[in-house]
Amino acid sequence: MLSHTECEEMLSRCLIGRIGLLSAGAPLILPVIFAYSQGAVVFRTAPGEKLDAVWVNALAAFEIDDWDAVTETGWSVLVRGRTESVHDESEVARLESLGLPSWVPALKPTTWVCIRPLEITGRRIGTFIWSRGSGQR
Amino acid sequence: MLSHTECEEMLSRCLIGRIGLLSAGAPLILPVIFAYSQGAVVFRTAPGEKLDAVWVNALAAFEIDDWDAVTETGWSVLVRGRTESVHDESEVARLESLGLPSWVPALKPTTWVCIRPLEITGRRIGTFIWSRGSGQR
Repeated sequence: MLSHTECEEMLSRCLIGRIGLLSAGAPLILPVIFAYSQGAVVFRTAPGEKLDAVWVNALAAFEIDDWDAVTETGWSVLVRGRTESVHDESEVARLESLGLPSWVPALKPTTWVCIRPLEITGRRIGTFIWSRGSGQR
Repeated sequence: MLSHTECEEMLSRCLIGRIGLLSAGAPLILPVIFAYSQGAVVFRTAPGEKLDAVWVNALAAFEIDDWDAVTETGWSVLVRGRTESVHDESEVARLESLGLPSWVPALKPTTWVCIRPLEITGRRIGTFIWSRGSGQR
């Protein structure tokens, strides 16, 4: 297991994470460019996107991981919490000042979304079984 | 957008993906070592794990992505489908022969889980906005 401090270090260092939501009753995972700032995961989304409705006050999972193919070890961190749209002007200005790049074209207006963690857990991962077979995929 | 063929190529090339499920009413994301074989995502899990119950016949999302920090471009593929435990002996033997490494210690028995896709979509991702700010995270 990773300690809470280690999990927060990983969150502070990463740029790409994945958000897990429920959309039309089924799980969905989308990669996002994010920052971990003041104890929350923050990222931008474009209003009008197919998924816009699910960003507001929904239960969400957020995951980051890394895997080293040479050492065959890695780690993952999972944040579970609730999404919030950020509307407060001074808070939006603070988030804009983080200098986060975006996948949304510059001409589109964006909304900031925040995930306030209810739980943060992390673990180290490594391979145990090497039953290299000869099967064809 | 990535074509279906491109999505399947990415799925065939990757070793680590992330499964999104609903656990106790809330979204969950977990990294898994997987193979894409005969049109399905397959991976192992250990019976008795906390999440064991949700592996059986549940709606699931499965995501892979890659991001190049130098070119600031990447891609992601999303599979949406339903999980199935694999019990058929010849099918289990076929999956074992794929030679997939595992994060589960060798002494533990494992169960194979399969996600049969209902939908596979993929997209290329790149950054658009570089509003590099001076804010502190």
